[in-house]
Amino acid sequence: MSDADAPALLSDDEVRALDAHWRAANYLAVGQIYLLSNPLLTEPLRPEHVKPRLLGHWGTSPGLNLVHTHLNRVIQARDLDAICVWGPGHGGPAVVANSWLEGSYTETYPDITRDAEGMGKLFKQFSFPGGVPSHVAPETPGSIHEGGELGYALSHAYGAAFDNPDLVVACVIGDGEAETGPLAASWHGNKFLDPVNDGAVLPILHLNGYKIANPTVLARLAEGELDDLLRGYGYDPLHVTGDDPLQVHQAMAAAMDTALDRIAAFQHAARDKGATERPRWPMIVLRTPKGWTGPATVDGLPVEGTWRAHQVPLPEVRTNPAHLRQLEEWLQSYRPQELFDTGGHPREQVLSAVPGGTRRLGSNPHTNGGLLLRELPMPDLDRFAVPVDKPGATLHEPTRVLGQFLEQIMVNTAERRDFRLVGPDETASNRLQAVYDATGKAWQARTLPVDEHLDPHGRVMEILSEHTCQGWLEGYLLTGRHGLFSCYEAFVHIVDSMVNQHIKWLRTTRQLSWRRPIASLNYLLTSHVWRQDHNGFSHQDPGFIDHILNKSPEAVRVYLPPDANTLLSTADHVLRSKDYVNVIVAGKQPCFDWLDMDGARAHCARGAGIWAWAGTEDGTREPDVVLACAGDVPTLEILAAAQLLRRHLPQLSVRVVNVVDLARLLPKDEHPHGMPDPEYDALFTHDKPVIFAYHGYPWLIHRLAYRRTNHSELHVRGYKEIGTTTTPFDMVVRNDLDRYRLVMDVIDRVPGLAVSAAPVRQMMQDARQRHHDWIRVQGTDLPEVADWAWQR
Amino acid sequence: MSDADAPALLSDDEVRALDAHWRAANYLAVGQIYLLSNPLLTEPLRPEHVKPRLLGHWGTSPGLNLVHTHLNRVIQARDLDAICVWGPGHGGPAVVANSWLEGSYTETYPDITRDAEGMGKLFKQFSFPGGVPSHVAPETPGSIHEGGELGYALSHAYGAAFDNPDLVVACVIGDGEAETGPLAASWHGNKFLDPVNDGAVLPILHLNGYKIANPTVLARLAEGELDDLLRGYGYDPLHVTGDDPLQVHQAMAAAMDTALDRIAAFQHAARDKGATERPRWPMIVLRTPKGWTGPATVDGLPVEGTWRAHQVPLPEVRTNPAHLRQLEEWLQSYRPQELFDTGGHPREQVLSAVPGGTRRLGSNPHTNGGLLLRELPMPDLDRFAVPVDKPGATLHEPTRVLGQFLEQIMVNTAERRDFRLVGPDETASNRLQAVYDATGKAWQARTLPVDEHLDPHGRVMEILSEHTCQGWLEGYLLTGRHGLFSCYEAFVHIVDSMVNQHIKWLRTTRQLSWRRPIASLNYLLTSHVWRQDHNGFSHQDPGFIDHILNKSPEAVRVYLPPDANTLLSTADHVLRSKDYVNVIVAGKQPCFDWLDMDGARAHCARGAGIWAWAGTEDGTREPDVVLACAGDVPTLEILAAAQLLRRHLPQLSVRVVNVVDLARLLPKDEHPHGMPDPEYDALFTHDKPVIFAYHGYPWLIHRLAYRRTNHSELHVRGYKEIGTTTTPFDMVVRNDLDRYRLVMDVIDRVPGLAVSAAPVRQMMQDARQRHHDWIRVQGTDLPEVADWAWQR
Repeated sequence: MSDADAPALLSDDEVRALDAHWRAANYLAVGQIYLLSNPLLTEPLRPEHVKPRLLGHWGTSPGLNLVHTHLNRVIQARDLDAICVWGPGHGGPAVVANSWLEGSYTETYPDITRDAEGMGKLFKQFSFPGGVPSHVAPETPGSIHEGGELGYALSHAYGAAFDNPDLVVACVIGDGEAETGPLAASWHGNKFLDPVNDGAVLPILHLNGYKIANPTVLARLAEGELDDLLRGYGYDPLHVTGDDPLQVHQAMAAAMDTALDRIAAFQHAARDKGATERPRWPMIVLRTPKGWTGPATVDGLPVEGTWRAHQVPLPEVRTNPAHLRQLEEWLQSYRPQELFDTGGHPREQVLSAVPGGTRRLGSNPHTNGGLLLRELPMPDLDRFAVPVDKPGATLHEPTRVLGQFLEQIMVNTAERRDFRLVGPDETASNRLQAVYDATGKAWQARTLPVDEHLDPHGRVMEILSEHTCQGWLEGYLLTGRHGLFSCYEAFVHIVDSMVNQHIKWLRTTRQLSWRRPIASLNYLLTSHVWRQDHNGFSHQDPGFIDHILNKSPEAVRVYLPPDANTLLSTADHVLRSKDYVNVIVAGKQPCFDWLDMDGARAHCARGAGIWAWAGTEDGTREPDVVLACAGDVPTLEILAAAQLLRRHLPQLSVRVVNVVDLARLLPKDEHPHGMPDPEYDALFTHDKPVIFAYHGYPWLIHRLAYRRTNHSELHVRGYKEIGTTTTPFDMVVRNDLDRYRLVMDVIDRVPGLAVSAAPVRQMMQDARQRHHDWIRVQGTDLPEVADWAWQR
Repeated sequence: MSDADAPALLSDDEVRALDAHWRAANYLAVGQIYLLSNPLLTEPLRPEHVKPRLLGHWGTSPGLNLVHTHLNRVIQARDLDAICVWGPGHGGPAVVANSWLEGSYTETYPDITRDAEGMGKLFKQFSFPGGVPSHVAPETPGSIHEGGELGYALSHAYGAAFDNPDLVVACVIGDGEAETGPLAASWHGNKFLDPVNDGAVLPILHLNGYKIANPTVLARLAEGELDDLLRGYGYDPLHVTGDDPLQVHQAMAAAMDTALDRIAAFQHAARDKGATERPRWPMIVLRTPKGWTGPATVDGLPVEGTWRAHQVPLPEVRTNPAHLRQLEEWLQSYRPQELFDTGGHPREQVLSAVPGGTRRLGSNPHTNGGLLLRELPMPDLDRFAVPVDKPGATLHEPTRVLGQFLEQIMVNTAERRDFRLVGPDETASNRLQAVYDATGKAWQARTLPVDEHLDPHGRVMEILSEHTCQGWLEGYLLTGRHGLFSCYEAFVHIVDSMVNQHIKWLRTTRQLSWRRPIASLNYLLTSHVWRQDHNGFSHQDPGFIDHILNKSPEAVRVYLPPDANTLLSTADHVLRSKDYVNVIVAGKQPCFDWLDMDGARAHCARGAGIWAWAGTEDGTREPDVVLACAGDVPTLEILAAAQLLRRHLPQLSVRVVNVVDLARLLPKDEHPHGMPDPEYDALFTHDKPVIFAYHGYPWLIHRLAYRRTNHSELHVRGYKEIGTTTTPFDMVVRNDLDRYRLVMDVIDRVPGLAVSAAPVRQMMQDARQRHHDWIRVQGTDLPEVADWAWQR
């Protein structure tokens, strides 16, 4: 079934103008893939006009050009505030072509003028060393989405639409991308889109039928099955099908008008008439040939409409005269002389439906979110600080304390609506539920009387899909807003690859002066490796930190606040920051309060420092040993070890160092937060044993510190991938991170203690044995551990 | 709409027997969560009978128990060969309970007898230190799937069904899991399931309505929308809805019979009548209350049928007498005295529908795949080796050579059908297409005349979802077959979290003597970081190696074969191995052949070794410098650097070391492949500079080698997250891995060369400058680089 047979909507002139624009964009896309010079074909095409390395992808381009052409029309006709997320891979040539046609490209890159010379540069730079990528990318004006790794277009689109009530976010989804898990899940974004406070998302599923080498699943479904699927996802599909351009233009225009009329009607009903039923939002299914208008056959094999059109349809243009002639015919088939004047400027007809100013898709400020970003109205931290008269005397659940701070941010942004909290069904499990006093959980599906905190206008986003959470937040941040993603530590690995791409985006945009800084992507990782009492081995993985620290140092930060006030200070810092990916790992279980608010601020500002109150050094010389820690559980064990040492080996001079900002351990030239060597040496000494209790995989600390003076004396304890369902203390014992083991490490490493401290070492062995005996019978931690408290 | 109103299928006796079994399983599930002793309630329940730490999840258990009870019935009635993938999180108590009832548990763990004493142990061990996890886990008899991280149940089920024509794989999908991306994508597995050669998958979508703290999306869809969705996914849903056990038993029995009758009919049509149309396979939508039969209300709040039933519905049993009383009433509501005799044995009625022997879900050998595993019929490597008379004289595309080897494995397994190749639409892009001469790409959707290599019976699996590929392969391996996953290097990060879980599974099963070894999960990562000429920065990420090497060393292996023959040897090795995750990183671009087949075998067996033919040392003393390399591109650059050194600094004694097996760099006590220190020192010297050109992030080499004698002289070059769309040589230049930079590194590090070799250093600088000047204009690599060849 196709709606393409509807009566003609456009006049012949309108169709001709749209077609001219489409042809111009197609011409420019082919030119980018092939031409090194002779951009207007002012002379017969010769091999030396063609790039020596043919890179890029033609297949998706004509479809994207069609969508862009028709979005132009409706934006202009309706004065629409619209952006488009271009999902298909390798769509760069198309979107760049359109951006150049509308003038956005030249305004962004003045060197690429809208004339023959600029066209020549535009062609040459594509997939050329130092030029622009074949994907819609950070370099592409009007883009908030890289079409490189597939799967995230639709969640980005929803993220962009949230809290942008006047915005329409079109989103082209390739039928290749539609096979991915993240994309398949993200259709359900419509159950979370508020017709009152959010904008609209218009998905355009482009069925060109093929991926790199295979047909696509959705393009080959039985009759009606695809409609069932899309209706099951909650949409009302409008079909545009064909390979006759003039007919498709009419059908596409009609579908766009129908979709936008329905969107307007749903928004009117919700905003002005109090309708509360979830709308069945429209979407468009565009079924046109892959590589449409390209070579029908090459070397006797079908190309247009097949997977062979995916990349470079004519691969041997420089060496095969038949290919060269075919390329020239292909380019001439667009009749460039009708489209561009002799100076290479697009003719008036081509531009007749192009909108102006910031209505252009390549110039809409929502796609350069930093332009719209406002500083978050941050509450006064002291209001939420827990009082700490002395270290280790009281307990708080750090994330619960943070929840109150986040609640106030929600209150402060109630009108502005530019802050959201996302998480996979874990906001309460992660003990942030105070936010529900300020706002509810977004929910547009059915509700029952027993439900709690569901709110059609809520700004807490929960769906059991880390991919969707991440995609929503990325789309929200990229369009100039703020947010926080709370997640179980182990399962944030689910978005490893997504965060890679976001960091790559940030790294690239940092080098583009026209891209304004956006709010950082902030993770709160809790329910962490050491406290999986309920869940055991499958929920234990601290490796996201390692993953993040492999990435561009200018864009990544990792924090391990050891208590409630340091968590508050860290959260305050990251929520004010821009253009980073910040990872905070913090506990939700009751945790001793070590620092008061001022102390926490000062400690977090340094990122790593001596806790003099916990050590025994007298300041006259380097200590005998440094006990270092990073993370809440390691900090607890280090302090317990320090207390044991003070009691049993009082003559030992012990320094305790806590590290909040992990990158401080890196050399200064490897990370902006890296410590200069003298500062590192002053903390960790030149040659004394350093026993470092670390939250994650111990070798990460070595990887960060291997260049340091005292690296040979650095001994790290951490998670060794030994896990099970057990008690908190048993977990640290199994991984040799427990206080008793740490004391034994000190005795084993500090010269001269082997004999004198042998009785103490035996005492520690005995304590570990007591633990072993106790836990197997009782199933709980030893009372001496469970009831432990810091004493000075 | 519910099919639950169908006429009664079961006699009253049958219903009573099924209900008795279900009640028994429910009783045992509650007992596991709560009871430390008094398992049969032979005395009034007192606080000390209750575990001190209440862990576990009740919510999903009654639904899983219902499914298990009814699977028992149809397995017994039809002598069905069936297994079940239990998707919902925290389903451990249910599946363990059923396994104990049917006797599988006691046969697997003889200590847990099927009597009162065993029941007591069964209860105590659950979520107890050193006991069993709350998830269906490796420890659970009959499981091939950990219910910890959600999303993979259905792809595991399809993987299990492939090439198991007589097997029915039931798969319970929780409505929480159904929100994840991987699960949403995996419904489309039915477009790849061959009714002739594959078994059947019976999805059972369990809508209990809630996740941890929220309603689920699918449970709250508008009327008809869910059916549209499931039909759109290609299934024919059968509904079972209710909260009246007796009515639900009848409905469930009817739905199971209908589903199995239809499956049998489809298989008969395809196998015996030549039907080729893709069947609309049945599935069951089971809608029952969360925590069904548990406490209706606790402390005045509704619990049964809400998210509050998710975990431990009565949390204060040890301290709150009302909770204790409520627990006792709950347990007694199952009338345990009717279910178990005074010795704790299940009564006859309870077991009347339980199948016997290997038909029991907890004893089916498909769930302990190693029992069924046969060695792969490996071809003779020499038939596929490329001839190498001297190093570096010829070029081959390593993965294309491997493709021919894989083709022969496909031929050798044509009848056995126990080997599959999976990949996200990249088999041909990764140049393995020779396999199509032996088998096609599995495809059950529509075909067109233009299509190539699609085959309803094919064993190459391609879908643009790394998650689905990984899930299919895991399911296939876990049921005792073999396979290989080929993937773009950067995008394998998409399955980071899935492979974590698989490695954790392997690590655990290695400690369970009853679990037999399964074939390794083998990755071929190609289209790697250095050769993304088309794709640029978004496709550049070598970090999967780092991710893998964080995991349990007994289960992970990483190989970087530098040419075609070493790739063959490595592939041969990993395809014979068991219980590992093997990662091979290899190129698909033309690459010099360095080693002949015998040399490749010997080199790969060592894992790392001196390439004497490439160096200049005379054997009388340690060389002046070691040039080490791992990976195809770094090997090329190191050899080019060695050649430059030989020409320009002939007096320098140079050793070239190539590393194939990365774990060899680790100390012996940190990885089974780790080199003893003397061996490492013999390769890398005690104090000479080592210039190490590495495929990935350079700090990984430091993390592996930081304990070695000569670590302070180890200088690593690798990928520094500097990427773009450019030429192959420009990529290595930008990351300081190029031959010229490596020669400069040698000059900078070898004592005494600073002055004498200054002219050579300048020559290298000039060569780099020549590259810079050339590439900006020409867009290709310098001829001296593009045409370089090894010369001795």
